[in-house]
Order: sequence, then structure tokens, then C-alpha cells
Amino acid sequence: MEKRALLYEGKAKQLFETNDPNILRVQYKDALTAFNGEKKERAKGKGRLNNEISSILFHQLSTVGIANHFVKRLSETEQLVKKTSIIPIEVVVRNVAAGSLSRRLGLEEGVPLNTTVVEFYYKDDDLGDPLINEDHIQLLDLVSINQLNEMKEMALQVNDHLTNHFKACDVKLVDFKLEFGFDEEGKLILSDEISPDTCRLWDVHTNEKLDKDVFREGIGQIDQAYETILTRLKGAVVTD
Amino acid sequence: MEKRALLYEGKAKQLFETNDPNILRVQYKDALTAFNGEKKERAKGKGRLNNEISSILFHQLSTVGIANHFVKRLSETEQLVKKTSIIPIEVVVRNVAAGSLSRRLGLEEGVPLNTTVVEFYYKDDDLGDPLINEDHIQLLDLVSINQLNEMKEMALQVNDHLTNHFKACDVKLVDFKLEFGFDEEGKLILSDEISPDTCRLWDVHTNEKLDKDVFREGIGQIDQAYETILTRLKGAVVTD
Ligand SMILES: Nc1ncnc2c1ncn2[C@@H]1O[C@H](COP(=O)(O)OP(=O)(O)O)[C@@H](O)[C@H]1O
Ligand SMILES: Nc1ncnc2c1ncn2[C@@H]1O[C@H](COP(=O)(O)OP(=O)(O)O)[C@@H](O)[C@H]1O
Ligand SMILES: [Mg+2]
Ligand SMILES: [Mg+2]
Repeated sequence: MEKRALLYEGKAKQLFETNDPNILRVQYKDALTAFNGEKKERAKGKGRLNNEISSILFHQLSTVGIANHFVKRLSETEQLVKKTSIIPIEVVVRNVAAGSLSRRLGLEEGVPLNTTVVEFYYKDDDLGDPLINEDHIQLLDLVSINQLNEMKEMALQVNDHLTNHFKACDVKLVDFKLEFGFDEEGKLILSDEISPDTCRLWDVHTNEKLDKDVFREGIGQIDQAYETILTRLKGAVVTD
Repeated sequence: MEKRALLYEGKAKQLFETNDPNILRVQYKDALTAFNGEKKERAKGKGRLNNEISSILFHQLSTVGIANHFVKRLSETEQLVKKTSIIPIEVVVRNVAAGSLSRRLGLEEGVPLNTTVVEFYYKDDDLGDPLINEDHIQLLDLVSINQLNEMKEMALQVNDHLTNHFKACDVKLVDFKLEFGFDEEGKLILSDEISPDTCRLWDVHTNEKLDKDVFREGIGQIDQAYETILTRLKGAVVTD
């Protein structure tokens, strides 16, 4: 698949057009950002690790029937995906209290949640990706209520699947962020990436952090943490 | 109704027990606070004005069948209400962009909303009254989903009624905050107050602010603004 013009460059990836108008070539970057771009760094190997981890996880989701944009991994840092019109809503699913949920509700980090919490954030860097509710989504005309319910439903399915998959790797899926889009036929499909940049992943025994919080909190080597996730995912034998 | 022990003192009101265990005596204070208590002032006459305005509005809501805690006004600054176990959720209804909605979504103040927006905030001063969604409410076990839907339904009814009522007074109901509680029989009823402290009210022709924003923004005399609202409410002939 030929690499053509750069379509969009984000904080973690570049999207290139290809000779197929419905297919994009994604280049995963080594750049790391946090706190809405305020903290920045280059982490050698991160692009390769996230490209491979996201490829494994999207492939897994395909096998359990969750419609998504992943086509195939092309190289160490590149993959092909179906082009989607991205919905500017970040869907966050939470199993354990951490991050902004802990701050919002005054819950201690690490407390398991007896209700799986789904949150919607408006994907807008200038506004700081604010939490929004269904009325805000209607007001901004981002998606219909039916589409929103479908996104929530899919996000919970992804959560069920990934929770099991990571458990088999001795990893606790604390929370994660998903993005959805519509493909060329108008079908809602999971897009973007699933990686230690977009999930909180803790060692199930020690609660050691194996995700972007290592960078946010400056508590270790990001490449080692992500490498641990990749190694465990490759070693895991999962049955579902 | 005898005045007994002080049960609770908030930022704007004192609640006293009475000889009837299900009835409280509310004393409206002249104190004004904003930004979660950071800005403070005493506004002579505010207690009297809010007591009278809230009494008029709750009485109106009673006549249209919206169950609420109001019993009767006792004196310039006092009223009797049914004691409720207050649900720690602030229900905000919005018709026009202003305040935190403008900031959250980047909407210019004064833009009419084509969808009535209902928001839930967790009533917790230490946490800064954060926006929450239905999953957070389940997680914190604040109310059931059915009760939440009932609150939302009642809030929209209050909005319909008050919007009309204020329109007849040449006042635009921009947004407002409600609190609900359960009475001694476990019935959900509207509680707290409805006043220029808890509503944004603009002159329908000039958009002049006639509410607590006058104090928040330091743009005029709070007592004059509130007096205008009271005078117009008293003068209005409303049919519904
Ligand atoms: N299948 C897809 N089609 C089109 N855009 C996509 C697809 N998957 C992800 N994107 C978008 O690619 C952009 C670049 O990704 P990234 O660098 O992570 O951006 P951001 O800085 O917004 O996090 C994001 O805006 C993301 O929404
Ligand atoms: N009918 C009621 N029964 C019991 N408590 C009530 C009732 N109506 C209002 N309250 C509570 O009275 C308290 C005092 O009011 P206020 O001074 O406005 O408090 P705050 O500082 O929390 O805004 C608030 O906590 C409010 O929830
Ligand atoms: Mg991204
Ligand atoms: Mg109050």
C-alpha cells in the first residue's frame, strides 16, 4: 500500500493517505505527551511498542467480533487502518479508581469500582477535553443518542474482552480510553489505538504501573514498562 | 411553630428544628458567597428578598402540582419547610449558555441552547461540586436510576413552568440549580430554594443581569437586582 500525503499529525501518530481512499497508513511516533501537551518527551522505541501492542489488541477484538478499523501491521512502527470520520468523543471505561476519577470523586487510587464507570469526554485540546454528558452531546450534535448507546455498549464489550485478556497476562486493566468513527459505509467502528498510552495497566500482584503514568509521574522507564506489556501479551494463551 | 435547635447552617440559610419533627424553620441570611466560598460579602436585605422570592416560586410550583417542601412564609426572612433527607446532587437546567457551560464547551455567553441541558453535580464543597454522570451516581450510590430519571423529569417541569412565569415578568430564565430530597414518607420532593442566588435571570430586553452574577462579576448592586426580580414577580399576572 503506497504511502501518500500526510493527512494529519497528532501527538502520538501520523496519518498518511494511501492509494486506497478508504485506507490510511498510521505511523506511531516516539513522542510522549501528558497534561494536554504540557509535559513532552521522546521515548525511543515507544512507537514500535505501541504499534505492536495496539495491533495485537485490535486483532484480538476482531476475533471476538468487535468491529474496528485495524487492517494489518506493516512494519515496526506502521499499520494500515480503515479511514473513519472520527467522532470527537473520548469514551473512558473504568474498573478501578485512578487519575481524574479519583480527583473528581475523592476516591483513593486503586479502589476497585463496584460499578463499571463509562465517561464521555469532548475531544478538544483547547477546552482541555472536558467531561460531558448526554445532553451536552445532543447540544453539540456529536452523535445521536442511539449511536451513543451503541458506543457505550461496544466500549463495555471491549472492557470485558480486554479485562480477561490482560488478566491472563497478570495485568490489571484499571481504565482505558477509546475513540470511535464511522467508516465509508457509515458503520460505527472502533478506531484510534489501544496501548499503554491509552490504558492504565498495573501488574496484578504488585500494582506496579506499566503505562503512561510512569511518564506522567516520572517514576521509571517508559520503554521497559511498555516492553513488559508487549512481552506478556505475546506470551499469553487466552481462550474466550 | 416553635423555633428549636439549630440543625444546620449553610452558606445562605440556617435550618432550625421545630416542635414538629417533620417541619424545619429556615432562616435566610444576608451572606453572599461565590466561587465555592472564596468570595464573601454581606448584602443587606438579601435574606428577605430571597425568602420572599423563593416563597412565591415554590407556591407557584405547588399550584401546578410539583411536589415540594414549601409550607409557608413565616416572617421577612423565615419560612417553614418539610424536612427532607437532601440528596447530594445539584440538578442544573440550562436554556441559554452561561457560566461553567460556556467555559466547558466553549460557547459564547447568551447563546440560546437548542437542547435543554440538564446536568448533575455532586454536592460536595471539598471536591468543588464536580460534574458527574449517571455511572458516577450509581458508583456513589446517591440515588437509583429511576429516582434520577424522576428528578430530571421534575426539573424539566420546573423549567417549563418557571420559564413561562418569568417570561410574563420580562425576565429570561437562563439556568438554575435545584436540590431534591425525600420527605418522611420517602417521597421525592423539590427542596432548598429558588432565588436569584440559584438562578441566572436576565432582563428579557436588555440582558441586564438580575442575579448572583452581579456579585460574582462585581457589576452592580445585588439588592437592587434582587428587588427588581421581586417587584416583577409581584406584578406579574400569570395564567397557566
Ligand atoms: N481510523 C482512523 N481514521 C481517521 N482518523 C483516525 C483513525 N484512528 C485514529 N484517528 C485519529 O488520528 C489522530 C492522530 O492520533 P494521535 O496522534 O493519537 O492524536 P491526538 O493528538 O489527538 O491524541 C487522532 O485525531 C485520532 O482521532
Ligand atoms: N427541606 C429541607 N430539609 C433539609 N435540608 C434542606 C431542605 N432544604 C434545603 N436543605 C439544605 O439546607 C442547607 C442549607 O442551605 P444553604 O445555606 O443554601 O447551604 P449550602 O451552603 O449547602 O448552599 C443545604 O445543605 C440544603 O441542602
Ligand atoms: Mg491520541
Ligand atoms: Mg445553597
